[in-house]
Amino acid sequence: MTTAPPTTTAAARLLGLLARDLPPDQLATDPRTLAAHASDRSGTRPDGVPLAVVHARRTEDVTVTLRHADALRVPVVPRGAGTGLSGGASAGEGVLVLNLSGMNRILELSVDDQLAVVEPGVITAELDRAAGEHGLRYAPDPASAAISTIGGNIATNAGGLRCAKYGVTRDSVLGLEAVLADGTVVTTGRRTVKGVTGYDLTALLTGSEGTLAVITSATLRLRPVPVATATIAAYFDSFEAAAEASYAIGRAGVVPALAELLDGPVLHAVDPTLGARGAALLLVQCDGAGASAEAEQVARVLAATATTVETTADPVEAEALLAARRLALPALERLGRPLIEDIAVPRSRLAEAVREIRAVSARHDVPVYTLAHAADGNLHPIIVVDPALDRLPDAAWEAAGEIFALALRLGGTLTGEHGVGVLKRQWVADELGPTAHALQRRLKDAFDPHGILNPGKTL
Amino acid sequence: MTTAPPTTTAAARLLGLLARDLPPDQLATDPRTLAAHASDRSGTRPDGVPLAVVHARRTEDVTVTLRHADALRVPVVPRGAGTGLSGGASAGEGVLVLNLSGMNRILELSVDDQLAVVEPGVITAELDRAAGEHGLRYAPDPASAAISTIGGNIATNAGGLRCAKYGVTRDSVLGLEAVLADGTVVTTGRRTVKGVTGYDLTALLTGSEGTLAVITSATLRLRPVPVATATIAAYFDSFEAAAEASYAIGRAGVVPALAELLDGPVLHAVDPTLGARGAALLLVQCDGAGASAEAEQVARVLAATATTVETTADPVEAEALLAARRLALPALERLGRPLIEDIAVPRSRLAEAVREIRAVSARHDVPVYTLAHAADGNLHPIIVVDPALDRLPDAAWEAAGEIFALALRLGGTLTGEHGVGVLKRQWVADELGPTAHALQRRLKDAFDPHGILNPGKTL
Repeated sequence: MTTAPPTTTAAARLLGLLARDLPPDQLATDPRTLAAHASDRSGTRPDGVPLAVVHARRTEDVTVTLRHADALRVPVVPRGAGTGLSGGASAGEGVLVLNLSGMNRILELSVDDQLAVVEPGVITAELDRAAGEHGLRYAPDPASAAISTIGGNIATNAGGLRCAKYGVTRDSVLGLEAVLADGTVVTTGRRTVKGVTGYDLTALLTGSEGTLAVITSATLRLRPVPVATATIAAYFDSFEAAAEASYAIGRAGVVPALAELLDGPVLHAVDPTLGARGAALLLVQCDGAGASAEAEQVARVLAATATTVETTADPVEAEALLAARRLALPALERLGRPLIEDIAVPRSRLAEAVREIRAVSARHDVPVYTLAHAADGNLHPIIVVDPALDRLPDAAWEAAGEIFALALRLGGTLTGEHGVGVLKRQWVADELGPTAHALQRRLKDAFDPHGILNPGKTL
Repeated sequence: MTTAPPTTTAAARLLGLLARDLPPDQLATDPRTLAAHASDRSGTRPDGVPLAVVHARRTEDVTVTLRHADALRVPVVPRGAGTGLSGGASAGEGVLVLNLSGMNRILELSVDDQLAVVEPGVITAELDRAAGEHGLRYAPDPASAAISTIGGNIATNAGGLRCAKYGVTRDSVLGLEAVLADGTVVTTGRRTVKGVTGYDLTALLTGSEGTLAVITSATLRLRPVPVATATIAAYFDSFEAAAEASYAIGRAGVVPALAELLDGPVLHAVDPTLGARGAALLLVQCDGAGASAEAEQVARVLAATATTVETTADPVEAEALLAARRLALPALERLGRPLIEDIAVPRSRLAEAVREIRAVSARHDVPVYTLAHAADGNLHPIIVVDPALDRLPDAAWEAAGEIFALALRLGGTLTGEHGVGVLKRQWVADELGPTAHALQRRLKDAFDPHGILNPGKTL
């Protein structure tokens, strides 16, 4: 699936055709624009410089761009806001960048059908805000919601904090319009919750990181804003104790809206006074008509092993309790360049995963800060490196590799919600196994026979 | 994708190889077994008689069967309990039936990970019962749960009554083991709620009606049994009024666990005294810690237009209220042979769909009885025909065709939860459109290049 860099002739011909078929302000080749569209927030730096950037405004711009690129075998990297953490939008030498962030209209918002039809460049939080005007919300809430686009969220099947109760992005995507590599437009899915006509192309495109098709519109499920929310903050003497307390919530039959774990080093980085309160913090939120009853039960369960437990139904107090989680990444960014890993393990292995991560950290003398979405076993072990370094130290790479191996050994996955991109590509075959890997390559060929869509990513 | 019937030589060679490689009690060719495995509950009768039936007991039986069948190009129809309503397991002349109902072990049930690993022949209600011993449940609840298998539920992406709140089967399938047409075993997905390594083959296989691979094991998500349930029954003067009242539940921000609509003719068929109470019955259930608060709100909203509203939190009383829904199909079976349609429309079009279905019924002089899962717009218009007739009357066919066309015109789908099988195949291209249809055929080729898996179904 790797595509050789296009010949100079093909590149020149493509630029000529695009200049002919697109308005002048939608095709950029100036070095500043190229540099601004060559990478994402993963910290990876591609080799070389992209050929050009197409700023798509409508589906037809995508169609014409892909038709020409496919005919000339020029690789295309689709891109939203560039907030990805795995290098999925990384665009190197000779590649055409297809920027969809300008396709940012909410085309429809249906209150009775509880759905929205949006273009891919809509910022996720913006959709949620628009839905909120009608008492609805877009449930998926990746931490990047304020800056990332719906198209990027779908391309990576983004997760977030509320997944154990409300599912991942895939669970909110009802249908898509997408453009195949050869420029043909395909529509998938429907406007109904149920529907089983044909294969589930909607789910197949969700999480495909721009390697199968370019999404040009999405029909998304909305849900009512919960009538009430209650928040619990509990400190523990050890991260393992906090992880084990999170299992007890499940055993008590409560499905929390969120359950966030922060380890001691993260707490210290956010605020030393928080760090002094305990070795781990578990933040839980329950929502809906039963929020306060569920929160009482959660507080009771946690009190068995926690050092302190606080509960509130007041939104301002809740925000204060959640501030530690919200401030974690900015705090780590003050310490250096954070390399955010993203493994998931069966949630009963959370405590074990944390113990092993600490051993990896000690063995390589690499500080690891860990956050976790406890209710779905999704851990973010964060290695902070010196921002002055041009490349990642070997010890950090080795520690990251051991953390991936650990995830697989515990029956988990390399990436819970950030995607494979370029960063995790070398470990993909280990997780999928040879048969599934080969089958996935055949699917890629069925969609994109010339391999022009986001080559070198994912598989 | 249609496969010519195997030559007699190929059939004889296949039987020889299977007789050599399988225990004698797992290969049947007697007419009685063949007849018992040739069709499902759709009422379709295939042409001719299958070649043989393989009773699989383990993955290796599936592997060896498919390897030989693929090499000899003999079509294979995978089959669970044969409870499908669209003819997906219909097996005609010269076809090999692969019966998975004997692979019926629950391999694992993890309380802390809230998941089960099961073989495909496990009866759905049996899994739910086993989960119930640990305070968990398998949320998908197709009406056939007591007689259908998990494998069949996955093959059709079965729905049920609780989908608006808990999702369809796909939303509870975390991973699969499946055997490809050439006999290689592939594993997909994972044991975690989140995970984005590679394309979502789990979702692609779910709902593929046995045309892409044969499922040999499934990792399924379980959820806590709700702590409380409250049930509301409301009668209305017209089906449209009941449908419109169901929109009001959504507008009030409540996501009910189920919302079932029965029209007047169904009520009369169940019990004339129910029929006398109103022209439509809406049954709503709310569950979880907020069940009673939500039920109060639902009752208040329905009272605005209903003639009577009853609410109960008592399980015995709830069962009595739900009895009308439970008894609907048996009651219609007493009237003749029910042909159960399965369209879904955006839920704001429910009242319109019902009005149009009544017009279709009148135009063709074909009685149509309608049930609906109101919260997800899934309608079951049921045409009851004389069981003595050898084939469906033209008027019934025409009425069914118009109901499918109506579903598409309202932005809906041919089949919400029963699958395409053979019954709805002629309308599939209309729903998918030519590009998606062609793409789906390419995917089918990538999985099953010789087209041996369930040929003539779905696409």
